Amino acid sequence: MIIKTIREKNPLIHHITNYVTVNDCANVTIAMGASAAMADFYEEQADFAKISSALVLNTGTINQSIANSMLKAIREYALINKPIILDPVALGVSRARDEINFNLLDLQGIKIIKANASEMASVIGLDGKARGVDSTFVINDDFLIQAQKYATKTKRILAITGKIDYIISAEKIAKIYNGSAMAAKITGAGCMCASMCGVFSGVLEDKFQASLYALLSFDIASEIAQESSSGSGSFRVNLLDALSNLSDTDIEKRAKYEII
Amino acid sequence: MIIKTIREKNPLIHHITNYVTVNDCANVTIAMGASAAMADFYEEQADFAKISSALVLNTGTINQSIANSMLKAIREYALINKPIILDPVALGVSRARDEINFNLLDLQGIKIIKANASEMASVIGLDGKARGVDSTFVINDDFLIQAQKYATKTKRILAITGKIDYIISAEKIAKIYNGSAMAAKITGAGCMCASMCGVFSGVLEDKFQASLYALLSFDIASEIAQESSSGSGSFRVNLLDALSNLSDTDIEKRAKYEII
Amino acid sequence: MIIKTIREKNPLIHHITNYVTVNDCANVTIAMGASAAMADFYEEQADFAKISSALVLNTGTINQSIANSMLKAIREYALINKPIILDPVALGVSRARDEINFNLLDLQGIKIIKANASEMASVIGLDGKARGVDSTFVINDDFLIQAQKYATKTKRILAITGKIDYIISAEKIAKIYNGSAMAAKITGAGCMCASMCGVFSGVLEDKFQASLYALLSFDIASEIAQESSSGSGSFRVNLLDALSNLSDTDIEKRAKYEII
Repeated sequence: MIIKTIREKNPLIHHITNYVTVNDCANVTIAMGASAAMADFYEEQADFAKISSALVLNTGTINQSIANSMLKAIREYALINKPIILDPVALGVSRARDEINFNLLDLQGIKIIKANASEMASVIGLDGKARGVDSTFVINDDFLIQAQKYATKTKRILAITGKIDYIISAEKIAKIYNGSAMAAKITGAGCMCASMCGVFSGVLEDKFQASLYALLSFDIASEIAQESSSGSGSFRVNLLDALSNLSDTDIEKRAKYEII
Repeated sequence: MIIKTIREKNPLIHHITNYVTVNDCANVTIAMGASAAMADFYEEQADFAKISSALVLNTGTINQSIANSMLKAIREYALINKPIILDPVALGVSRARDEINFNLLDLQGIKIIKANASEMASVIGLDGKARGVDSTFVINDDFLIQAQKYATKTKRILAITGKIDYIISAEKIAKIYNGSAMAAKITGAGCMCASMCGVFSGVLEDKFQASLYALLSFDIASEIAQESSSGSGSFRVNLLDALSNLSDTDIEKRAKYEII
Repeated sequence: MIIKTIREKNPLIHHITNYVTVNDCANVTIAMGASAAMADFYEEQADFAKISSALVLNTGTINQSIANSMLKAIREYALINKPIILDPVALGVSRARDEINFNLLDLQGIKIIKANASEMASVIGLDGKARGVDSTFVINDDFLIQAQKYATKTKRILAITGKIDYIISAEKIAKIYNGSAMAAKITGAGCMCASMCGVFSGVLEDKFQASLYALLSFDIASEIAQESSSGSGSFRVNLLDALSNLSDTDIEKRAKYEII
């Protein structure tokens, strides 16, 4: 009954995110029954850490000033042991971007990394062949082995979005087969998945479970949305409708995944 | 015939606002028949004051640099006596945010403060029990007395959004019973209400009237939108449709409010 | 078969643009089959120039810091001869804005200027009578002569949006009669047109052709969208749907333009 719990507890999910998809991230968060605060001002990170249930960081339109706010926020959240989700958008595309992201990753406190395959490859030290925000990297066995090593070493959950989604922890790997190809036809699907990880982390202690339910929920809402969509505009609208109507029963009925 | 007047006169409403809901604010402004300029660059505040009919300030994603532009803009608009609306988003959540907002409030020129109950409580000196952008504060008689004292002292109109909206001036209090609960299920409903106050202030000298019609219009459009919505995505689309089709007749027929 | 080519080649279109309509620009870019990167960080302009097919600059919410990134980006793209599109939003409204835009225009590398009539008048040295983002300027014969002189001198294509769109090069002028009045009722139609110029420039060497097909495509999608819209909210959704379904056949069947 996780979605029901979210809608009852209404956790506040704090984001420091890009200005491209920030509105979608806020709307997805609210549609799930959580509250959204999008605050990147350095001076108020300690205050938001106190009142929020989780922090979502997204480096889509990163610069040095925003990076400083993120570094400060990570320290504040880590101090009081509240969960942090990082979405290292377009990691591998530029040296400046890599430097900022790895500075964030060097800190304690990040519990979930949500990324596409290219970005995640860069996170774990492989060549991600990044081209902007889209992934061209194909997940293979070696990748999974390296990813699980990284998860073990850092005690982090890796949530990898793509045609098949992967959730990787030190102990297990989940493969999710739900989803819609239309999600790749709008900007921000990945960012919204990170917000979903934030929302579920706000009520679930087990971050593997939180990531699994976050992506299952997003993927199943995407499937529902696709059924009545006639293009990327209506898909985006229907996705928010589907998320705002999503129930635990939908997840139970439609979830297609395995733990390997 | 206020809405008709807006659509004929097409006032330019200048915003310095947050990057989360800025697109919605621009679209709401245009849907009502006004024009929108979203310009936060310090160097051009004097130029925008000359050509605009009203200024809307929203501190959602405030930082020191944007605050400086707001301070500059208030001075420029006050100098030529053009109306300013302030939406002190999440006031009470952090010391940095409070400091910036009270620096803005210390200046002459702000004619309307649009806020939820928590934020308005902070404005008038009560404990707002703020948690992010959502209000948990309940309006009672003492609040109304303090609010009207503040309105009298500052000659400002207080426009408070919630299940029931309140418009408070030195002389009177309006209670608005229109609205839809779905407005709280999307990000930016409050921000859009501030834009509406800007739009109506652009053509109405009496700022109590302007605030009253602004919130009535938003609330009635929300009711119309809700009738054909199946979730928060379609509500947001229908809200813009309803605003772009809204007429003075709709307001006359559907308005439910009292002046106390 | 230009649209087919875009959907096959999937060019990456890099934007440095305003935070008001950035989401729409990204979604329009993706709906056409291209990829979108919105990155304004100074330090990574050289890296994005390497992997992108075109650069779209939009000065809607310009400030000095963003302007510096744009200047850097222009130099990087010009160095490797990749196309740059400039949308000088609200040119003529303030001295600060004019200064920044003319600094950009002074550099080599901008191949297409996309603007409304007021803004374009300012570009070519006439009085644009600018008021915010909306155009009040009427195109006449003298304007067209001056515009073509500017196009000849600078070897740039001028793409002017309005009730009738004009594409002007040193050799020819195209007049486009397609379009919907509803496009002026949402924020960002002009910005999206600049993105469209970017998308088509990513696959077409001839920038007159690219601009012509870009605006034809946007205008025809607007007409299709209008047919099923009941206000500005649904128009915006239907526009994205129409763009994501648009085919070369649609253009062939519906295009109304002449070369003069």
